[in-house]
Amino acid sequence: MRANRLREVVKERGHATNAWLSIPSSYSAELVAHCGFDAITVDLQHGMIDFGQAVTMLQAISSTGATPLARPQSSDPVQIMQLLDAGAYGVICPQVDDADIARAVVAACKYPPSGERSFGPARGLLYGGPDYFAHANREILVFVMIESRKAVQNLDSILSVPGIDGVYIGPNDLSLSYEGTPSSDPKGEAAQAIEYIRTQVAQRQMLTGIFCADGAMARKRVDQGFQVVTPGNDAAILKNGCLQQLAGLGNATADGGGSGY
Amino acid sequence: MRANRLREVVKERGHATNAWLSIPSSYSAELVAHCGFDAITVDLQHGMIDFGQAVTMLQAISSTGATPLARPQSSDPVQIMQLLDAGAYGVICPQVDDADIARAVVAACKYPPSGERSFGPARGLLYGGPDYFAHANREILVFVMIESRKAVQNLDSILSVPGIDGVYIGPNDLSLSYEGTPSSDPKGEAAQAIEYIRTQVAQRQMLTGIFCADGAMARKRVDQGFQVVTPGNDAAILKNGCLQQLAGLGNATADGGGSGY
Amino acid sequence: MRANRLREVVKERGHATNAWLSIPSSYSAELVAHCGFDAITVDLQHGMIDFGQAVTMLQAISSTGATPLARPQSSDPVQIMQLLDAGAYGVICPQVDDADIARAVVAACKYPPSGERSFGPARGLLYGGPDYFAHANREILVFVMIESRKAVQNLDSILSVPGIDGVYIGPNDLSLSYEGTPSSDPKGEAAQAIEYIRTQVAQRQMLTGIFCADGAMARKRVDQGFQVVTPGNDAAILKNGCLQQLAGLGNATADGGGSGY
Amino acid sequence: MRANRLREVVKERGHATNAWLSIPSSYSAELVAHCGFDAITVDLQHGMIDFGQAVTMLQAISSTGATPLARPQSSDPVQIMQLLDAGAYGVICPQVDDADIARAVVAACKYPPSGERSFGPARGLLYGGPDYFAHANREILVFVMIESRKAVQNLDSILSVPGIDGVYIGPNDLSLSYEGTPSSDPKGEAAQAIEYIRTQVAQRQMLTGIFCADGAMARKRVDQGFQVVTPGNDAAILKNGCLQQLAGLGNATADGGGSGY
Amino acid sequence: MRANRLREVVKERGHATNAWLSIPSSYSAELVAHCGFDAITVDLQHGMIDFGQAVTMLQAISSTGATPLARPQSSDPVQIMQLLDAGAYGVICPQVDDADIARAVVAACKYPPSGERSFGPARGLLYGGPDYFAHANREILVFVMIESRKAVQNLDSILSVPGIDGVYIGPNDLSLSYEGTPSSDPKGEAAQAIEYIRTQVAQRQMLTGIFCADGAMARKRVDQGFQVVTPGNDAAILKNGCLQQLAGLGNATADGGGSGY
Amino acid sequence: MRANRLREVVKERGHATNAWLSIPSSYSAELVAHCGFDAITVDLQHGMIDFGQAVTMLQAISSTGATPLARPQSSDPVQIMQLLDAGAYGVICPQVDDADIARAVVAACKYPPSGERSFGPARGLLYGGPDYFAHANREILVFVMIESRKAVQNLDSILSVPGIDGVYIGPNDLSLSYEGTPSSDPKGEAAQAIEYIRTQVAQRQMLTGIFCADGAMARKRVDQGFQVVTPGNDAAILKNGCLQQLAGLGNATADGGGSGY
Repeated sequence: MRANRLREVVKERGHATNAWLSIPSSYSAELVAHCGFDAITVDLQHGMIDFGQAVTMLQAISSTGATPLARPQSSDPVQIMQLLDAGAYGVICPQVDDADIARAVVAACKYPPSGERSFGPARGLLYGGPDYFAHANREILVFVMIESRKAVQNLDSILSVPGIDGVYIGPNDLSLSYEGTPSSDPKGEAAQAIEYIRTQVAQRQMLTGIFCADGAMARKRVDQGFQVVTPGNDAAILKNGCLQQLAGLGNATADGGGSGY
Repeated sequence: MRANRLREVVKERGHATNAWLSIPSSYSAELVAHCGFDAITVDLQHGMIDFGQAVTMLQAISSTGATPLARPQSSDPVQIMQLLDAGAYGVICPQVDDADIARAVVAACKYPPSGERSFGPARGLLYGGPDYFAHANREILVFVMIESRKAVQNLDSILSVPGIDGVYIGPNDLSLSYEGTPSSDPKGEAAQAIEYIRTQVAQRQMLTGIFCADGAMARKRVDQGFQVVTPGNDAAILKNGCLQQLAGLGNATADGGGSGY
Repeated sequence: MRANRLREVVKERGHATNAWLSIPSSYSAELVAHCGFDAITVDLQHGMIDFGQAVTMLQAISSTGATPLARPQSSDPVQIMQLLDAGAYGVICPQVDDADIARAVVAACKYPPSGERSFGPARGLLYGGPDYFAHANREILVFVMIESRKAVQNLDSILSVPGIDGVYIGPNDLSLSYEGTPSSDPKGEAAQAIEYIRTQVAQRQMLTGIFCADGAMARKRVDQGFQVVTPGNDAAILKNGCLQQLAGLGNATADGGGSGY
Repeated sequence: MRANRLREVVKERGHATNAWLSIPSSYSAELVAHCGFDAITVDLQHGMIDFGQAVTMLQAISSTGATPLARPQSSDPVQIMQLLDAGAYGVICPQVDDADIARAVVAACKYPPSGERSFGPARGLLYGGPDYFAHANREILVFVMIESRKAVQNLDSILSVPGIDGVYIGPNDLSLSYEGTPSSDPKGEAAQAIEYIRTQVAQRQMLTGIFCADGAMARKRVDQGFQVVTPGNDAAILKNGCLQQLAGLGNATADGGGSGY
Repeated sequence: MRANRLREVVKERGHATNAWLSIPSSYSAELVAHCGFDAITVDLQHGMIDFGQAVTMLQAISSTGATPLARPQSSDPVQIMQLLDAGAYGVICPQVDDADIARAVVAACKYPPSGERSFGPARGLLYGGPDYFAHANREILVFVMIESRKAVQNLDSILSVPGIDGVYIGPNDLSLSYEGTPSSDPKGEAAQAIEYIRTQVAQRQMLTGIFCADGAMARKRVDQGFQVVTPGNDAAILKNGCLQQLAGLGNATADGGGSGY
Repeated sequence: MRANRLREVVKERGHATNAWLSIPSSYSAELVAHCGFDAITVDLQHGMIDFGQAVTMLQAISSTGATPLARPQSSDPVQIMQLLDAGAYGVICPQVDDADIARAVVAACKYPPSGERSFGPARGLLYGGPDYFAHANREILVFVMIESRKAVQNLDSILSVPGIDGVYIGPNDLSLSYEGTPSSDPKGEAAQAIEYIRTQVAQRQMLTGIFCADGAMARKRVDQGFQVVTPGNDAAILKNGCLQQLAGLGNATADGGGSGY
């Protein structure tokens, strides 16, 4: 089975970059995947992407060396299993607020006896190889998103669930939970929570990941010790790029498109 | 019938900005259309976009104030008529190398007796309004692309064809024709051809448009007197934005995605 | 943030009209949206519409003044949040049979601390505007569908859940629950239930809505005091229109297509 | 090979009804096909339909007894052959203005030695049966559209081209050509042309077809002797149905959607 | 209402064949449906198929005499109801591990008072006929999948749930549950479980179905007494066919595509 | 730029295998591409595939080592250029009956001054690499299809057109032209023509390719000296595989689906 390069990259270089896709197009997915990111996440939660489109995007990503990941809409095992069958080499599950949810997520990602994943790895066999079943439980990365006060309070029990490979922080929802307003770079209690999560996860030798507004913020997060960082999503990058060109022209009059996280 | 705002903007402000879409997605189209461009062109020639996708993109653009345009794959009247029926408020027709092609393009855009457009303006009626037929011949903008030595040689006869509203220059193909290599900012003979075209078109009170690599180049073109400018296409903006974020992170290793023009 | 026109229309005119879409096409959606309805509901429950198609339909509706709504497949928060991110300005949630379900629906529609909606309003920002987050909890309309005997029995506790803006009655399912057979104009106990629901909802100054078989039935419902009415869905209107044309021709031999509610 | 029922119906009943689809949806196609029409035409010229969508629509129509037809975008042999391979049991080719065009159309519809159709009848084999090749030249209906003054002038030579099964009149384009304005029920010279075409075609024992605004107009055309009539297209029927429901409600305020022909 | 032919075939011939589709294409669905299978199952669990694609596949199957079935992603009532509205004439629900799940599945398939299916049978009315409501509870087939040790332990209580028409065995998941490795022809305890399930189901006069690797295995299962058998899925048949052709050429070097079950 | 592996394979091994896709699905495309073929051709002529679907199929193929090719619908330069921009590494152009058509095909495939290809190599840059422009004229393979008596008569002048890399024989159309009936293994004059073409092409050191019914026929063609062979298309392989499984079961009753060439 093809090895999970994201894990290897973190080992070799200390950190990895992870693009984030919300535009439902296999062409833009492939374009982004050729830019040099180590992993690409197809976002089915806040992206405008359904399963049929996600499949073609995972295929496009598979034509490059970037590791294909997916964020399912929720921790519901049904869609997690579907995305793994579609060849995602890892999932980043949103709103994992307690250990029960974490256990369900892991169970969806692991074949018995470790979990309850149903057998039928369609594209998994194509992307991973004919020995997919033998190694999938090891190669597929399971990230849980910690993005609420409740999740932080339950962090210890969540991290004790066997089979979790890493934690991805959603700063916007975390800030919303702590501060009542979304922010990709929260201050105050939410900022402390981010640092607390990072240290707790790192102590357990699990991967620490976080969504960032852009490359500069991602750099800051790497300097803080994060290992997997997302420097903005495709929609924000496209919008900001357009505004930049219009500004270069002297016509900066956007009405505020784009997509926050 | 809804007035063609692109024409009005040029009158009011001297120049207009025109985005260029190659990603087959109505979401990215809408995102770009909210950035403040005066017009948005759906590119069916070099974009990865077919007619079904173009329709949803034109619809998405129609939810903003930007004027929806389309670049058909060629000067074939069949697709030009189809795109106008789909609500494009203008076409930018590639490779119009002589007056016969120009006449065919105009004929496809005008209802009889001015032309030979077949009646059935589906989305035209929705976007334009119930009196679409009465005013379409006037409101729909017809741009011909001048992008070869042959076209430049035939420029006078091309511009003499009644019904052309403007000329859009494709600098890459023009450079390829003159210099043997594509360039969005050609030097030498091709650069002279660009200036020659601009002045000839301007003398006839027709609109002068040109594709540019980015906002800075577009600014330069406006300063040269161009009225409609495209500061790069969506694919290039997305790719460059990704590379910029990776560079901010210290990970600039793209293998060279993107799309030239 | 763009104001919710459906609410305004009811205030101004006493009632509003709401089209109902089951055909998975952005073109038919746009066509219907241009007919003069105050709101348009994309039906993901009984319509043949999935999320990817719903996005393009919401975009098409957004090119008109009609307020875009969606009926999710169920009260599952995951799809409700996805549809709001896709720019729906309200949801009509089916089968809300008790207060717990109602609370889950409201929680999915409101950002913390009022609810548990996750942040990432993709198309919401485009359609609503850059200040979407600040006003979304107020502008987004939350309708719960009352369509079973159980729901009627629990009506008081359901309506006591804070954050519900209105009730939409599904007469077919209600009739099925009370009478054992679907009917868009039920008699007997189900008819009494409809009147009971309407008065209870109206007493609390919440919006009263109901699905109707056609315009004549919708008129009757408005006369009874309903504020938001749906005069049939697109499939039924198209089918009946076809049968009418065939009848005009003397060829009325349909085998009974169409879609009941 | 499955027999072409449209031809049989005309023989049995004197006339046949033909629905006209412009909405790109296999669901609305199937809905219309269940209404009792004898044939259903997928319109790729003025409909918002591309080839991929047309295939699913032809499949949906194939689940009923209605004969699946297609109107290609033009008389270009390439798309005609593609639509026949996709299982269309006949084509209605627009803008056949002279005998050369007519010959090209027929050539695209007939396998050698009668014509130049390339072999590869994909869905044709499924819908028609395994002996498709042996009978296709006979069963597939070839309609040419006469819709300009030029075509009327060339009518005799057009009709002399062997292999044409019938003529379909496009009254809107014909009116545009003669009167300078589109009309589905033209007066004056265009009306005379319609009657002239009908009699010329009928004299040669070929099928006479015409697009009509609605069922009443179609009835009139049948009374005039037309054999295949289209009582409006799906978009117009859906729009008029919506307006009718709104009128029933007292809210008739459409801004003029719909699609003329 | 159209009768469920699958049930009739089993009565007449003792067993029936059921194709299994994982490729998201209405063309391949139609192709397979023309091969002579008695039923065709659209697999939304391990297939790469979403709801929008499933609709077009069910339509394509409906153009043949094969009975259209669907495997939903899970026993979640929401998708089961959606697939029945889309015209599936039966569902094969995965991972029905206890009687509560079985009851939920049945409830989703039956209109009140037998169950809780919501009314709105869109394509059901088209494929089944206008009297769909009156007979759907009887004609629609409900298969539950028994595919874990837990399900076998609960078999008696599962089979006691009224409304189940048959059991479909998933040998791969069953083998995974018993033996720790997937196998379409398991040995040992899992093989005994298969025989135990078959006899228990047969004793209750319910249908016995099972997924098989290929036609030879399916023959063996029929000989064992199974009534509904699936001789491999489309992906495996296509892959094996390709390898067979390459072997015929002397180029058998596949890297192991295909899809296991 | 990535080298064209198809050419290399022929050099190394004497012949290469080329799969043929008519099913519009990126999943089946990827499945086939993993089977070990040296090249994969997306067939837009007789396949049920449009451009939007072709793009996702080319992407899926690009995730394997197989060389992605496309058969355009015709020799029209417009679609040829579009498919090359979409990343096809070669085209197989149908019905090249004379040297003029051959010249137009080559011109569409080569950038000036060798040809007239317009610049904008979207996916070409992604799949081929950033130096695509510099080497595309060399790496992109141009196959012309010889499939009529006329083409055979013009063979010498066709093969004299500079820039053609090889000839692909379409035996069905060739047989139709010579014998009046399609056959993938024609006898008589058509068989002689095939051998004549092969020797003429081979003498000029150009690639000799041919479509075959299956692997056994392909083996025969390789033994005859052909270098690139197609052992049936995906539709035929899927259909025959299904029939084989049903035969294994004792249920071989297909009504004759599939697709001939």
